[in-house]
Amino acid sequence: MTATPDLSDRIRAAVITYLDRIGTASSSQIAELYAIDATLEDPAGSPTRTGRAEITDFYRGLDNVDAHAELLTLRISGTTAAFHFRVTTNLPQATVVVEPIDVMTFDQTGHITSMRAIWSPADMTMTPS
Amino acid sequence: MTATPDLSDRIRAAVITYLDRIGTASSSQIAELYAIDATLEDPAGSPTRTGRAEITDFYRGLDNVDAHAELLTLRISGTTAAFHFRVTTNLPQATVVVEPIDVMTFDQTGHITSMRAIWSPADMTMTPS
Repeated sequence: MTATPDLSDRIRAAVITYLDRIGTASSSQIAELYAIDATLEDPAGSPTRTGRAEITDFYRGLDNVDAHAELLTLRISGTTAAFHFRVTTNLPQATVVVEPIDVMTFDQTGHITSMRAIWSPADMTMTPS
Repeated sequence: MTATPDLSDRIRAAVITYLDRIGTASSSQIAELYAIDATLEDPAGSPTRTGRAEITDFYRGLDNVDAHAELLTLRISGTTAAFHFRVTTNLPQATVVVEPIDVMTFDQTGHITSMRAIWSPADMTMTPS
């Protein structure tokens, strides 16, 4: 299926909202961006989480953390987005930076139907505070 | 499945070889990097090509073209690689640059089992010669 310009715009907006919510929203507000039966695999190769309850659970680790995300590169094609981004997490002892490439597919309403995050510990840097 | 360090190294080498062959090798030499029954979707959302004959056919357009590819960012996780790269094609009338994000999965021997390229015409630039 080829994306209409409308769907492409909707996907772009959803990615930007997603990255914004990583820094500012609760885990359930992040999970609301996903379709009801969506799947999440982060990092790719780890067990797949399915549905909003499991997906909310995944993001719970961000609920009490000072983190923010910046978009570096976004590509959209059909119903798929791939984007390179930077997540900076300020811990009491250190600042941790990771720059994954995420791959997401979307339904026609712009909800995420699947997410796979491609990164490894080698892509993280840690700077003591 | 989680990547062993060995498989991760093999995937990294395969991606680098792939980008190198885009500039220097024949379409069949590029197709040899794929598993026998691999799939290719470029751009994502277009019809899937399956097997080496169809994949060779896809790359035939590069056979007589002055092109080269540079890796910008590579992430590997499990059996999946995602990479942002730049392809520069020198045509008689113009230089065309496109910077897709490709997502590839690999078998244990380091052959590509699937490739999806995420990009759209908006990601291309053209400079008249």
